[in-house]
Amino acid sequence: MSTTSAAPDAVLETFLDANRDRRMASYEAFLRIPSISTLPQHAADCRRAAEFIAAELRDAAVEHVEVSETGGHPVVYGDWLHAPGEPTVLVYGHYDVQPVDPLDLWDSPPFEPIVRDGRMLARGAADDKGQVHMHLRATEAILATRGALPVNLRFLFEGEEESTSEHLDRWLEDHRDRLAADVAVISDTGFFEGNVPAITLSLRGMMYAQIDVTGSPVDLHSGGFGGVVENPAIALARIIASLKGPDGRILIPGFYDDVVPLSDSDRALFDALPFDEPTYQQTFGLVGLTGETGYTTLERRGARPTLDVNGIWGGFQGVGSKTIIPAHAHAKVSCRLVIDQDPKRIFELFRDYVTQIAPAGVRTSVSLLGEGRPVQTPVDHPATRAAARAIEAAFGQSPVYIREGGSIPVCASFETILGLPVVLAGFTNARMWDEIAATDLRA
Amino acid sequence: MSTTSAAPDAVLETFLDANRDRRMASYEAFLRIPSISTLPQHAADCRRAAEFIAAELRDAAVEHVEVSETGGHPVVYGDWLHAPGEPTVLVYGHYDVQPVDPLDLWDSPPFEPIVRDGRMLARGAADDKGQVHMHLRATEAILATRGALPVNLRFLFEGEEESTSEHLDRWLEDHRDRLAADVAVISDTGFFEGNVPAITLSLRGMMYAQIDVTGSPVDLHSGGFGGVVENPAIALARIIASLKGPDGRILIPGFYDDVVPLSDSDRALFDALPFDEPTYQQTFGLVGLTGETGYTTLERRGARPTLDVNGIWGGFQGVGSKTIIPAHAHAKVSCRLVIDQDPKRIFELFRDYVTQIAPAGVRTSVSLLGEGRPVQTPVDHPATRAAARAIEAAFGQSPVYIREGGSIPVCASFETILGLPVVLAGFTNARMWDEIAATDLRA
Repeated sequence: MSTTSAAPDAVLETFLDANRDRRMASYEAFLRIPSISTLPQHAADCRRAAEFIAAELRDAAVEHVEVSETGGHPVVYGDWLHAPGEPTVLVYGHYDVQPVDPLDLWDSPPFEPIVRDGRMLARGAADDKGQVHMHLRATEAILATRGALPVNLRFLFEGEEESTSEHLDRWLEDHRDRLAADVAVISDTGFFEGNVPAITLSLRGMMYAQIDVTGSPVDLHSGGFGGVVENPAIALARIIASLKGPDGRILIPGFYDDVVPLSDSDRALFDALPFDEPTYQQTFGLVGLTGETGYTTLERRGARPTLDVNGIWGGFQGVGSKTIIPAHAHAKVSCRLVIDQDPKRIFELFRDYVTQIAPAGVRTSVSLLGEGRPVQTPVDHPATRAAARAIEAAFGQSPVYIREGGSIPVCASFETILGLPVVLAGFTNARMWDEIAATDLRA
Repeated sequence: MSTTSAAPDAVLETFLDANRDRRMASYEAFLRIPSISTLPQHAADCRRAAEFIAAELRDAAVEHVEVSETGGHPVVYGDWLHAPGEPTVLVYGHYDVQPVDPLDLWDSPPFEPIVRDGRMLARGAADDKGQVHMHLRATEAILATRGALPVNLRFLFEGEEESTSEHLDRWLEDHRDRLAADVAVISDTGFFEGNVPAITLSLRGMMYAQIDVTGSPVDLHSGGFGGVVENPAIALARIIASLKGPDGRILIPGFYDDVVPLSDSDRALFDALPFDEPTYQQTFGLVGLTGETGYTTLERRGARPTLDVNGIWGGFQGVGSKTIIPAHAHAKVSCRLVIDQDPKRIFELFRDYVTQIAPAGVRTSVSLLGEGRPVQTPVDHPATRAAARAIEAAFGQSPVYIREGGSIPVCASFETILGLPVVLAGFTNARMWDEIAATDLRA
């Protein structure tokens, strides 16, 4: 599917048909490896998945294949560099998967793939093993039938995407010289709404912080102290309520300073998407759709920054009543950021504002827990246009262009460490990453 | 100490001195019983404490002594009704104690009494065994030395005060006929700031509710949905922030309608109290004292209603970050109420207001978890004045009059079920109920 040939290739199609059973057996074997990167007891499984990919790469005639140590789960590297004068494309994917808890919500064991309605279901099928396997097998088919690829390829598959890609940046820095390329293709996104071929033009960045509000050294009795001391949980609620206006605008001074406004052509791309709000709302059981005034749902999700409370806690959480004033209260607060917002700068603005509005009578502190830069590649970038032509050739229709709300931190790493533009060409047909684990075998 | 005689009684004093060791041994035995009413494994200990009191009452020559079943921990009843024409006083106390967790914060085992600086320390010494024992032994001493009491007495000691007095109201209703009296004396409060003899004129009531805010059926990914759905934790924060103004006034319409304003003489009683704010703040490690504009700390605590969040929770509370929009968020919210606020009415106002201000895009519900009526007895009530004379005779100084922020639900039961005015004559010299478990043996 990374062919750039516009005409169907009878020899290639014959090869793919003839090898379908073998290909499916290999894919199933890949899905059976429980490569859960966050759980230490699955470290050996992660290594097994890496070795599996390395063997497949060698099988496909890719060269310089190596399982490379990172300090965590290994990276798999390989290349094919025999197209002189042609661009070099760095293809990225990940072999690790999310944990499977709670197990009782699965209809079938997550690492025993089953086929239902033409879709293969297993943990990691959509995110991201199906896409990794697609690249392996497409490369094999082209090299087997034509003897050469139209571009130079470097493959990079990591095993820590689901656990913050902790060791990848360092590995990229250490191997910068051998990663020279013209563009990175990341296949870790999906079709639009699960069924329309798409290229993702941007992903949001992130600033993730924690607010801690402390009153007394211990919980106080609400009879003895109610009315005479500030309540940390109420103080925290006041702070949170002051972060966003009723119109959905974030009230942190300077927050929007670096946000690039939506152009008419940006909005036209959003408007062109086949999106039905009632269906969307019903699919996810949402009470309602709401957000920043002046923007559509897709614009709010893909092109506007936002702020959410990810968790809040303090005091008594049990059944019944306990008459205390909590000693402290806490909240996890994160912002999704868009081009050209800088997570470090946003954290400073956030911290300064929270400190300024924090009520008297309690101590308030703010700490940074995580960050990620937003990424965006123009719709008219040559690499985007090449990807669009490839998709049109393979699927018989032009891709739509989408801007997604999530974050893939490695995108920013490719940009900042390797200086590469990123094309997000994803083929997952799942509607929801963490709900459905499926690859459509008909595509 | 329930003598109404103003002159010292040499015979009585001699009896008390002669029986000091026996009295202390009995008190220690009482404190050794781990009568923790909330823990089922201590049910037998609670019964043992009730039987202990019954034996002591009989020993003191009190009549009709009975350990009476309630469906929970038993009530102990006894009476002495041989003062025709004199008032009948119902004396109340409780033999159950709070749990002792966390045990490692105790310097010595909580049920092995020790004497330190003239104070006996053990769980329940201050709340309320010392005060129960005082009544038992005072009655014994007067009957032993004079052969008669100056008033008629009924004793009522329960074993569920620390676990919401669950079965007491029903028991009071069932035994209303044999509880006829003129006044109830409740000894379950303390000296002012631990060292000034005091009569408590009022206690606050309570309305305890829970707010539940629900968005989607499951936690949503904050990348995919951040900016397009209402965040239940932010919605909850908005609601909470709207409950109280920055001046400490509660913003629920109608909340203050039934609050009796403080009179000049009310304020004079507060002003007369020996209270040092910096010491108070330092003792409890408070960051600051703050509250409703226009009232002193003691007025805010004792004579003004207030609202607190007792607990709040929703979403991710672990270490690090998880990028979710919580499916739901919750808060326990309670109001301390003053005369003449009705907890049921306050709940209705609270529920209606929260429902009205609840943001769109989430479902918000409010439920009542508990309630208790405020109580107040006038400073010039004949029973209050009699108690003041008794305190003056025993301690050589007039009591101060205080209004406390806590609640003792049984007070309202005595008023509403038995129709009795309540005198809160408490003798605990602890500064803080749940921190210090001490009886001053010098008093």
